[in-house]
Amino acid sequence: MRLISYRNAAGAGAGVGVMVDDNGFVALGEVAPDLPASLRGLLELDDGLARAAEVTQGKAATHSLDDVTLDPVIPDARAIWCAALNYSAHQEEVGRTRSQYPEIFLRTQASLVGHKQPVVAPYGDGVTRYDFEGELVAIIGTAGRHIAEADALSHVAGYAVGNEGSVRDYQRHNRQYGIGKSFDSSGSVGPWMMTADEFGDPYVQFIITRSGGIEKQNCSMGLMLSKVEEIIAYTSIGYHLQPGDMIFTGTPASLPDTVKLMKPGDVVEIEITGLGTLVNSVVQGEPA
Amino acid sequence: MRLISYRNAAGAGAGVGVMVDDNGFVALGEVAPDLPASLRGLLELDDGLARAAEVTQGKAATHSLDDVTLDPVIPDARAIWCAALNYSAHQEEVGRTRSQYPEIFLRTQASLVGHKQPVVAPYGDGVTRYDFEGELVAIIGTAGRHIAEADALSHVAGYAVGNEGSVRDYQRHNRQYGIGKSFDSSGSVGPWMMTADEFGDPYVQFIITRSGGIEKQNCSMGLMLSKVEEIIAYTSIGYHLQPGDMIFTGTPASLPDTVKLMKPGDVVEIEITGLGTLVNSVVQGEPA
Repeated sequence: MRLISYRNAAGAGAGVGVMVDDNGFVALGEVAPDLPASLRGLLELDDGLARAAEVTQGKAATHSLDDVTLDPVIPDARAIWCAALNYSAHQEEVGRTRSQYPEIFLRTQASLVGHKQPVVAPYGDGVTRYDFEGELVAIIGTAGRHIAEADALSHVAGYAVGNEGSVRDYQRHNRQYGIGKSFDSSGSVGPWMMTADEFGDPYVQFIITRSGGIEKQNCSMGLMLSKVEEIIAYTSIGYHLQPGDMIFTGTPASLPDTVKLMKPGDVVEIEITGLGTLVNSVVQGEPA
Repeated sequence: MRLISYRNAAGAGAGVGVMVDDNGFVALGEVAPDLPASLRGLLELDDGLARAAEVTQGKAATHSLDDVTLDPVIPDARAIWCAALNYSAHQEEVGRTRSQYPEIFLRTQASLVGHKQPVVAPYGDGVTRYDFEGELVAIIGTAGRHIAEADALSHVAGYAVGNEGSVRDYQRHNRQYGIGKSFDSSGSVGPWMMTADEFGDPYVQFIITRSGGIEKQNCSMGLMLSKVEEIIAYTSIGYHLQPGDMIFTGTPASLPDTVKLMKPGDVVEIEITGLGTLVNSVVQGEPA
């Protein structure tokens, strides 16, 4: 099952949609008004996903992605954790390494937009370098603290595609990435959450990023250094993971002779095989 | 005016309180049920603080702090920004410096508790060092992006006292502080938000931290390197600050021959002169 968070549907307002095909969806609020109106709320119910599947099974699409605005899958996550330097070839291209522990940091919710919404390049204000980072995003379904690696994937409701867009100048002002990883609307996640049962093994799939029709990343997720389950286990030593929390799992290196740069006018497509393709155009923000 | 976020009041549930003295408060929901039930909601109204002052003026206290649970002033902040290495003597004691830019990072909401709630020492799980950090916390009242330093203090609704409690082992696993600054219930903020007009100039006041009756920090906030207005201006280059956002402004050095260590059984008192004293006992968490 693939689920979206949408706004601005004619006659349907905002809510959760269940995809029927790559474009059509059933507005969950129309067939099951008793279910929560947000995807986070649905994940907070033990049987939320099962009920969503049951009430939409066999239904024809009531809306199309073309007619709505997509939110960043979970528009109200309690925490958005990101893993840095989680592919060795990316460590080599940026000239940094990490310890044996996952290196994690937080992003703001406001830093993320949904599929087909523009990401905002903040050139000016001391910004000369704004980069995409194609990543797998795991979305927590079942809360937990001190989660063992062996149990960690049972806490994942599903997966989405992410662009962990990064303002390099600000990211490098100091050791902490700070605002460099949280410029408003600098990243994205979407188009949908595919449930973990449907996606299957993440590590046999590939991240492929294209910009202006040119392939810029193409990497097996089997090369991820700290796997999803290790990041979850590590984070949960300190933080009680909650339904709807999103975990960005790090970006691979760029392909030879390409860079991750995003410029106004670009269209960035991040595909994760077996999961979907996240598309965002890049627009110039207004500097001070 | 001093405002609190409380829970578990007999006959008053949860809501916003306006302090009458150091212990008694008026439950805002009882005298003005039309006002928002959360402090963030109140700050989102242009005239929220003015209306709270008007409806509580001259009223006798209806409740006491002793009868309620205090939340971390804003229990639902959209962002909690923290400044690192913002006093030069603290840079010296930890042996690190920063660039000319403020060094900022994010904490989770779940990492904070309110006044008189226990903070949780996570000894075990590889943790050997859990420290307090007494800090001034600025709370945003008026949203804004690209805020000029000269205008920045007009965006501050008020101030609180913070303990930016830090799990050093995890903080030092990698460059990014990660989970080390976001262990659940590892920090605190309170006891109240004092409005900016009542607090006045922060830089003539002192942070004084005591643990077990021993003074551990005593420092003029005039020694802050990046002042509140500079942190706000810098952060707002990338992030549209929102009402209720909290900004921890960094901790001073420890006094000679003292350490910031917190152990189970300790009671940590952080006073900011002219503002209040935040008190938290330390309890041992349950490791895996």
